[in-house]
Amino acid sequence: MRHSLSRGSGAVPQTAAVPSPWVATLLALLIAGPAAPPVWSQESPPPPTMGTVLEGSVPSDWRALDQANTIYVTLPMGRVVIALAPELAPRHVANIKALVAERFYDGLAVTRSQENYVVQWGDPTAAGEERRAIVKARASLPPEFDRGLTDDLAVALLEDPDSYAPKVGFAHGLPVALDPASGRLWPAHCYGMVGVGRDLAPESGSGAELYVVIGHSPRHLDRNVTLVGRVVEGMEHLSTLPRGTGSLGFYEDPSEHVPVVSIRLGTELPDAERAHLELLSTDTATFRALIVARRVRTESWFVEPTGRIGLCNVPLPSRPAAP
Amino acid sequence: MRHSLSRGSGAVPQTAAVPSPWVATLLALLIAGPAAPPVWSQESPPPPTMGTVLEGSVPSDWRALDQANTIYVTLPMGRVVIALAPELAPRHVANIKALVAERFYDGLAVTRSQENYVVQWGDPTAAGEERRAIVKARASLPPEFDRGLTDDLAVALLEDPDSYAPKVGFAHGLPVALDPASGRLWPAHCYGMVGVGRDLAPESGSGAELYVVIGHSPRHLDRNVTLVGRVVEGMEHLSTLPRGTGSLGFYEDPSEHVPVVSIRLGTELPDAERAHLELLSTDTATFRALIVARRVRTESWFVEPTGRIGLCNVPLPSRPAAP
Repeated sequence: MRHSLSRGSGAVPQTAAVPSPWVATLLALLIAGPAAPPVWSQESPPPPTMGTVLEGSVPSDWRALDQANTIYVTLPMGRVVIALAPELAPRHVANIKALVAERFYDGLAVTRSQENYVVQWGDPTAAGEERRAIVKARASLPPEFDRGLTDDLAVALLEDPDSYAPKVGFAHGLPVALDPASGRLWPAHCYGMVGVGRDLAPESGSGAELYVVIGHSPRHLDRNVTLVGRVVEGMEHLSTLPRGTGSLGFYEDPSEHVPVVSIRLGTELPDAERAHLELLSTDTATFRALIVARRVRTESWFVEPTGRIGLCNVPLPSRPAAP
Repeated sequence: MRHSLSRGSGAVPQTAAVPSPWVATLLALLIAGPAAPPVWSQESPPPPTMGTVLEGSVPSDWRALDQANTIYVTLPMGRVVIALAPELAPRHVANIKALVAERFYDGLAVTRSQENYVVQWGDPTAAGEERRAIVKARASLPPEFDRGLTDDLAVALLEDPDSYAPKVGFAHGLPVALDPASGRLWPAHCYGMVGVGRDLAPESGSGAELYVVIGHSPRHLDRNVTLVGRVVEGMEHLSTLPRGTGSLGFYEDPSEHVPVVSIRLGTELPDAERAHLELLSTDTATFRALIVARRVRTESWFVEPTGRIGLCNVPLPSRPAAP
């Protein structure tokens, strides 16, 4: 599917899918430099809207939620479903699954809700008291802040500039940033992304403390913490939690803690209790068409079609799986 | 105050304050192009942290909240204080003040709370019923989506690229974007910004419906709606409202509406009921040093100092006024 913009068909975002060597493709994109602000021309046929793009999708554009890499966080107000990304943080995802298996999280609490920043859960035990023991999982792990760019990694690149990285796009269903010069790629802190809290030492994170972005994307955290996935259902249960009044949004009084009733892996749950969702794969022509649709807003409400898009404003659609 | 980064003193953001002609300065910045990702060099003295910058501020860096352009929105759960920006949207700010004066808002309701997007209030009357009349204020206004760049406008420019505009920075205490080619400037949809809801027609907004950004910055709304200011206190009363389950986050049942008890102008209130806040002026050396401090994160927790910053991640500090 191609859409004519005033700058010609080159305006359609390309997927840098498995070029060998990938460096050449990325450098070619970078050498072109950030384009002048594109303007949708009234003479060109308008690109379709997101609704039209999704209506035109085919079954193979979608992938079922992988229950073996999905965790269900049960809070008193509802459940939060998180799709983990073993492709981007294999050791941390494995450790979170080990923590789930030993029921480490059950009965812990949301201890932090910081306005325009993050919600975080973990062991609410005060300093000096005995903390929840980690039995079989690891209590610390080497960081997985970024990974190498490899030929088997399909990245749907955005053409517009990013404030934080030389290039940005999507890989394995997640927003990512990359640096061709260093050959590194890392997930980006967009709304709903899930990360591993850590102390001063980079290797001090284990997954025993997890946080979720609930405000404007704090991209300065990129490459400073390990991101392990994103919330695909139930964000509203986290984003509407009362804000903590302590430093960094921590709840000052234990009575404010919100219990984490349990965390379970999808494969542990009876079928009726699973979220039956399909996620739009980001390595498809449909997803690239969706980027165009959201980049050039020709719906009648828009006076200014924008003609640009930022990484964290690209939607990552899901839909109920066919019964 | 200057800080040495590895790229030299040019890394200190400049204020394009009243150059004449301003175009030359902006073009010079643009011709330089987006810089390579700057890296803080261990050999250079680290820039100070934000805390150190604010401790070093002087009284003239701060301006008291202008009560003649501040509105207080009283909700059942607390009050939201909004600093209006007559410099950027004079007609709409005047009309909102006229609506406050005729008590138009009192007894209306928050009707919309859309996850990762906006909260909005206005007349909750269902279609077909009689809506609240606007008596003296105007029911529609020519849009104020952007304004011309003029020599008297001091803009603290960021040097890092923006996904949506050729240049971005701060003017009159607000995040702004600008396009030297067209000579236009407009406020940017960052977290906490307040805008004027409108229907299809660009001139259909009056201020009778207002919305506040509660998620990742929806910058595609820039130049499509009139922004009138930002929340300076009480954001948490809006961001934690239950999300509406209807289309676009509207509450489906009138019982879900959150009453807008009243909206008052600061100058109407007794002194004891006003917010006594000072805001850091964005046309000061202290603010520019703050940008550097947040751009290069040398606090010990950070492994990757980033060396870049996006518009909506620059803090806009406030503090209690001296008694």
